[in-house]
Amino acid sequence: MEFSSKLLEKAVTEMSQLPGIGKRTALRLVLHLLRQPVEQTTFLSQALTAMREDVKNCESCNNIADSAICYICANPKRDHALVCVVEDIRDVMAIENTRQFHGIYHVLGGKISPIDGVGPGQLKIAALVDKVKAGKVRELIFALSPTMEGDTTNFYIYKQIGDSGIITSAIARGIAVGDELEYADEVTLGRSILQRVPFENSFGNG
Amino acid sequence: MEFSSKLLEKAVTEMSQLPGIGKRTALRLVLHLLRQPVEQTTFLSQALTAMREDVKNCESCNNIADSAICYICANPKRDHALVCVVEDIRDVMAIENTRQFHGIYHVLGGKISPIDGVGPGQLKIAALVDKVKAGKVRELIFALSPTMEGDTTNFYIYKQIGDSGIITSAIARGIAVGDELEYADEVTLGRSILQRVPFENSFGNG
Repeated sequence: MEFSSKLLEKAVTEMSQLPGIGKRTALRLVLHLLRQPVEQTTFLSQALTAMREDVKNCESCNNIADSAICYICANPKRDHALVCVVEDIRDVMAIENTRQFHGIYHVLGGKISPIDGVGPGQLKIAALVDKVKAGKVRELIFALSPTMEGDTTNFYIYKQIGDSGIITSAIARGIAVGDELEYADEVTLGRSILQRVPFENSFGNG
Repeated sequence: MEFSSKLLEKAVTEMSQLPGIGKRTALRLVLHLLRQPVEQTTFLSQALTAMREDVKNCESCNNIADSAICYICANPKRDHALVCVVEDIRDVMAIENTRQFHGIYHVLGGKISPIDGVGPGQLKIAALVDKVKAGKVRELIFALSPTMEGDTTNFYIYKQIGDSGIITSAIARGIAVGDELEYADEVTLGRSILQRVPFENSFGNG
């Protein structure tokens, strides 16, 4: 691409550093900003800079927060002995949206993936193990994605915890509510039969 | 979406103002920035702000430029009497990439589209008509997209110019180089037969 403006080229280059944004998309986005009032670009730049410089990780659960402790960990009404282990803050948002969970979270910040160069050392695993060993946890719910990396991470943490006597559980895998049985993959369908629940318990309030 | 951080929420909101970027994509982009060094966000913000505040439109052709006159209009080796009318600076970039055109451009900044509220007054049509009437143009090449809006815009300009005696042409429509004939739409295929060219001329150097 040949640009008639160095300023434009620089903006497109920086924009195309973002994941999934190629040069053409970046150009389209940047040209859109050029057609909008100056303020839109100013607001965007300021919001990004302020976020990147001032956002914190909760000292307790590693969730993203504006203060040292996130609003979930700071809430005395939540069950602080019931800890849900998740990969990412997006998972926290997804679970919070269900309004079904009243414990707290522990955000690992990823999952063990040797192929991407992510070992246990890069994740917030030690802090979680410390929390368990300090006797602060009654039940640990593993809520990572059901992939090989997710399972590896679950198992690694499970081994680290050892026989601390706490309850460990994993979120249920099965047929999604509203899904047609015939389109479910066989692993999921198989699991949903093996891990069947008493009929009386099978009506969620979700 | 419930955010655990106002700073994060603001960044996502601003990011999702961009066309084609929904809240989920915005969140993914913003979380990516959080995982990168602070500098990446600083560079992006600065590049966007600098571009938005300092970029200019070429006084002659309306192309985007860093100075009052763009590098194409400032080039004395180009044919300043051969003017290619395009919609957008992306079209300038696309035509420049072919290295087949040695005239200058005139960037309208859009096309007439009553449905989007774009009338001739919002486009750089008057300046083009003035240029033609001042006798500065030998040939005008219409290179707008072959849509109803493009054709309307072409026709509007053609009428405005009146009988100024200049040559007017439109870029050739036909089967794209490398395309299979059987997959071409019938309008394009029909035009390519009506507007056939002498066989000796049918070998491009592109």
